[in-house]
Amino acid sequence: MVPMNIHIVYAHPSATSLNAALREEMTAELEALGHIATVSDLYAMKWKAVADYDDFGDVDNDGFMAAAGEAHANGTQTADITAEQEKVLAADALILQFPLWWFTMPAIMKGWFDRVFTNGFGYGDNRTWKRYGDGRLTGKRAMIVTTTGAAESHLSDRGVNGDIEHLLFPINHGILFYTGMDVLPPVAVTGAGRLDREGYARTAAHLRERLRTLATTEPIAFRPQDSGDYDEHRRLKPGLERPQTAGFDLHIA
Amino acid sequence: MVPMNIHIVYAHPSATSLNAALREEMTAELEALGHIATVSDLYAMKWKAVADYDDFGDVDNDGFMAAAGEAHANGTQTADITAEQEKVLAADALILQFPLWWFTMPAIMKGWFDRVFTNGFGYGDNRTWKRYGDGRLTGKRAMIVTTTGAAESHLSDRGVNGDIEHLLFPINHGILFYTGMDVLPPVAVTGAGRLDREGYARTAAHLRERLRTLATTEPIAFRPQDSGDYDEHRRLKPGLERPQTAGFDLHIA
Repeated sequence: MVPMNIHIVYAHPSATSLNAALREEMTAELEALGHIATVSDLYAMKWKAVADYDDFGDVDNDGFMAAAGEAHANGTQTADITAEQEKVLAADALILQFPLWWFTMPAIMKGWFDRVFTNGFGYGDNRTWKRYGDGRLTGKRAMIVTTTGAAESHLSDRGVNGDIEHLLFPINHGILFYTGMDVLPPVAVTGAGRLDREGYARTAAHLRERLRTLATTEPIAFRPQDSGDYDEHRRLKPGLERPQTAGFDLHIA
Repeated sequence: MVPMNIHIVYAHPSATSLNAALREEMTAELEALGHIATVSDLYAMKWKAVADYDDFGDVDNDGFMAAAGEAHANGTQTADITAEQEKVLAADALILQFPLWWFTMPAIMKGWFDRVFTNGFGYGDNRTWKRYGDGRLTGKRAMIVTTTGAAESHLSDRGVNGDIEHLLFPINHGILFYTGMDVLPPVAVTGAGRLDREGYARTAAHLRERLRTLATTEPIAFRPQDSGDYDEHRRLKPGLERPQTAGFDLHIA
């Protein structure tokens, strides 16, 4: 097996949590597999969650996105942002690990994307920037590992919370695939508050299996923007959807 | 018209932004209508975005959610959290205004929900907590006002970014309706970076109209959890969906 550089972005406030235990399982398994695992432990780093003008150094632009782009282009952005961008660029795969809070990432991880995936790194001019399957991070793999107290059925296709794959779509498609990465199906641990010893062992075994197959698992078949599937208004052309699909699933080939 | 207390939670880092201008339009219009408008300007308040143990004061629980619940029940949570909870409880309607960053709220606003909608206020024990159409915030109205540089077609039903109504579902359904509020269709300003004077005037006029009809606009018809539409596993019962619907739209009656 080819060794990979795998960067884990991790957000949980408690060192004795299920997430902390699963993170240990991950790094141990990745090292046993011969990979190099690095971690951005956002709580331990006291990561600055709020994107603001302090991130930019000396810039001329007033507008926030323009100022962000100027700071990135001129190298005046803060060192913590540059360091995280370098970790992403050095990685063959990115793993995001977080508890599902209000059906998405905790603020500290959202702020990691708001600040690190900045104008000129994560996105750029709408008319020219390569995105959705083609971009700066093409060739890298990405995978979410998340935990939730909700029961599996509540997050199933007809579950009251919405389907977990759809809840994660804005991250998987809107951030990870947007920047060019191949996105693997998530590892979603449900009923997290009620795992007994056997449940934990089963969860950890499943996670290890997903790490062993990280390089070979088929990514979610999101449609590249330049695949010819979208018209000039970036709408999916009629008739291309799989039968019985609607909503976010339109964007899976 | 009956005067309402309307609380705006606002997140934008620039005082000269489109968002800042639209916020001024909102507060002026609400006051002209005879309502009382209050604002939590999260950047101006230097709102602490990251939920952590410092929020809880002296607690016995180790687990993060349990510690949050203990702090809320015993009144040891920090004063900034309590102050925001009191603003929510005093409001007849809640307006969230933010630029769409990576297809959702900026971290500072996510952190407002992570910290303010805490265990015992926003959610509680899965088995007994009233949620989805019935809860602590029942009787209040809620509305998102958001801006995005993306073109409208890119956020339309077949648009490459996903439908804006679906992108906002985790907030509208998963937070606002979850806690019992009646959720109005969002005001989504597209092409925000390219608005000319006429486009701005049209946007402001639309926003004012939505404020004039805040008390009368039909809420999104999300299905209450206790409506009888869900089975004992909290899955939508077969055959209840509208024709041609799937995904998040299953949860709209």
